[in-house]
Amino acid sequence: MSILNKVLGGIKPLDNEAQVKTAERLDSLIKPIGSLGKLESLAIQIAGITGEVLNKTDKKCMVVMAADNGVVEEGVSSAPQDITAIQTINMMNGLTAISVLSKQAKSDLKVVDIGICHDISHEKLISRKIRMGTGNIAKGPAMDRAEAIQGIEVGIDIVQDLHKEGYNLIGTGEMGIGNTSTSSAILIALTGATLEAAVGMGAGLSPEAFEKKKEVIGRAIEINKPDKADPIDVLAKVGGLDIAGLVGCFLGASYYRIPIVIDGVISAVAALLAYKLNPLTREYMIPSHSSLEPSYRLIMKEMNLEPNLYLNMRLGEGTGCPLMFQIIDASMAILKDMATFQEMSMNNDFLIDIR
Amino acid sequence: MSILNKVLGGIKPLDNEAQVKTAERLDSLIKPIGSLGKLESLAIQIAGITGEVLNKTDKKCMVVMAADNGVVEEGVSSAPQDITAIQTINMMNGLTAISVLSKQAKSDLKVVDIGICHDISHEKLISRKIRMGTGNIAKGPAMDRAEAIQGIEVGIDIVQDLHKEGYNLIGTGEMGIGNTSTSSAILIALTGATLEAAVGMGAGLSPEAFEKKKEVIGRAIEINKPDKADPIDVLAKVGGLDIAGLVGCFLGASYYRIPIVIDGVISAVAALLAYKLNPLTREYMIPSHSSLEPSYRLIMKEMNLEPNLYLNMRLGEGTGCPLMFQIIDASMAILKDMATFQEMSMNNDFLIDIR
Repeated sequence: MSILNKVLGGIKPLDNEAQVKTAERLDSLIKPIGSLGKLESLAIQIAGITGEVLNKTDKKCMVVMAADNGVVEEGVSSAPQDITAIQTINMMNGLTAISVLSKQAKSDLKVVDIGICHDISHEKLISRKIRMGTGNIAKGPAMDRAEAIQGIEVGIDIVQDLHKEGYNLIGTGEMGIGNTSTSSAILIALTGATLEAAVGMGAGLSPEAFEKKKEVIGRAIEINKPDKADPIDVLAKVGGLDIAGLVGCFLGASYYRIPIVIDGVISAVAALLAYKLNPLTREYMIPSHSSLEPSYRLIMKEMNLEPNLYLNMRLGEGTGCPLMFQIIDASMAILKDMATFQEMSMNNDFLIDIR
Repeated sequence: MSILNKVLGGIKPLDNEAQVKTAERLDSLIKPIGSLGKLESLAIQIAGITGEVLNKTDKKCMVVMAADNGVVEEGVSSAPQDITAIQTINMMNGLTAISVLSKQAKSDLKVVDIGICHDISHEKLISRKIRMGTGNIAKGPAMDRAEAIQGIEVGIDIVQDLHKEGYNLIGTGEMGIGNTSTSSAILIALTGATLEAAVGMGAGLSPEAFEKKKEVIGRAIEINKPDKADPIDVLAKVGGLDIAGLVGCFLGASYYRIPIVIDGVISAVAALLAYKLNPLTREYMIPSHSSLEPSYRLIMKEMNLEPNLYLNMRLGEGTGCPLMFQIIDASMAILKDMATFQEMSMNNDFLIDIR
């Protein structure tokens, strides 16, 4: 049996008993029932993931999948293709937004070359290159089916390593010029969304380039005819290796029962592919910020998930995740450190004495 | 001249030059222009507040104003009045939600007794009691005008101390059974909002108690006839001492040029009173979470402010602020630690060499 099939078949539902116990503990804390909203539901979700009521999220890792996309030769991106390699190196050197935010959130950052079209080397780089960038989806498939599965299995493998190393919270990021185009194509292929609803301005396009982008994505769907019922076919034909790696991260986190945070559109499209492969993966996912890219809401609606942060961000790289990590830490602290009504009754007596 | 008048007259606009320089620096960082949304606008706002481009928010303080409200004798609250004193002590003992969240966000927590109707003592308590709870607003004014001003000046004084001690970020919280009723009454008096729009279920009311609450608040407005054009009259007649103290915090933070974070409805109503006293105070305020109380959105609309976190919380105590502190820390880190395009060009050369 392939690793992918083993993982897909091995994902279990959340632990209901741990969730019920956690809800009971939350209701015993000195606050009105349910008044801490998402801080409470996050604690319940994470208990369901690990099977324990009290959990730590003190060993965090951002995983960034970096790969090039052949579709950039169509002029769909505002940045030159070299930026993928340059920013990947900058990330490992601590210079990019995700580097700074990971450090601020006390998260490690692992950067994976899963398909950059340059040979790069760096002491911190995890080299798992499957090919030197994908094919141009406007002319043919991005990759073949075996490469797509290989890409997913890289993500699963990375999470297996994180699991062995004791990581208890994962964030998902990407670097790949052109990946808002592949994300939009996947979204259209999976959901039948219109070009208008699924295609965004990316990181900084002119109106003309935006029209061009829609035309190119329309052509990619027409030429490749991805099969909606087969998420791997969609990924191989109109996706990218960065997205394949992230799909593997979502599957791996669900298999190894580690909470995993969604960033913006590209990360969310990978989450949607994982969800289509196995709907149970949804229970292991935690959304972070609401991306300004219009397709973000479509994807969340498709999975019935709600973002937590509204910060008008549209950078990618995984930048919403470290911000959400700190909200999750707060949720863990509430469950662990707040007093219960039972403990409080002593203080109540004390007060009656001093009245 | 009174302290209040000195402060009201001494609040200046933000430093425009520092804001422009900060925006320039943000635009030079290796990311698409504006793509970090609120993380960028927060950095610009805080530069405008302090007059410096680079700022630290490493010395944080939550200020909780605790006071009782006479209106609870009308049965408008789901919790007995003693809870104000009990929870105030629990806060200082590290047992409540705001205690736990402040600690998690590396924030100090200062708790002020500005009008609790018990004599309480605690080594950590800041005792600035003005009176033993307010009058019942359904029967007459909460307090007289001099007491309202005294309450505001307590808040100003606390912030003056924080300023002397070098605090660079302030959050606003409260503890006072019945204060969702006084907040609603203030909101109606200031904006002409309907009872339906301004009154919420509080921390956990039954439908019958909710109807009763609306009737009581309607009576408070009718009997007291607060003068919309005179925010201090509104505060004295239908407000509370916790809110008065928080109004002083917002005014003090604006005067001493320290960024100050708004929590939920009660904190936001205090912010609105400060804004009505001097509209420049708005520039010093940072919203945190969108409270589930329906009146929250009304207040934000009145000040043209947008919340950042959507966490379905409705607890109060200031609990949204420590969560927002960490987003603000992230904003400071982005501005300070990300590389500029100029610095990146060196890496670019490097890449061209290895191609």
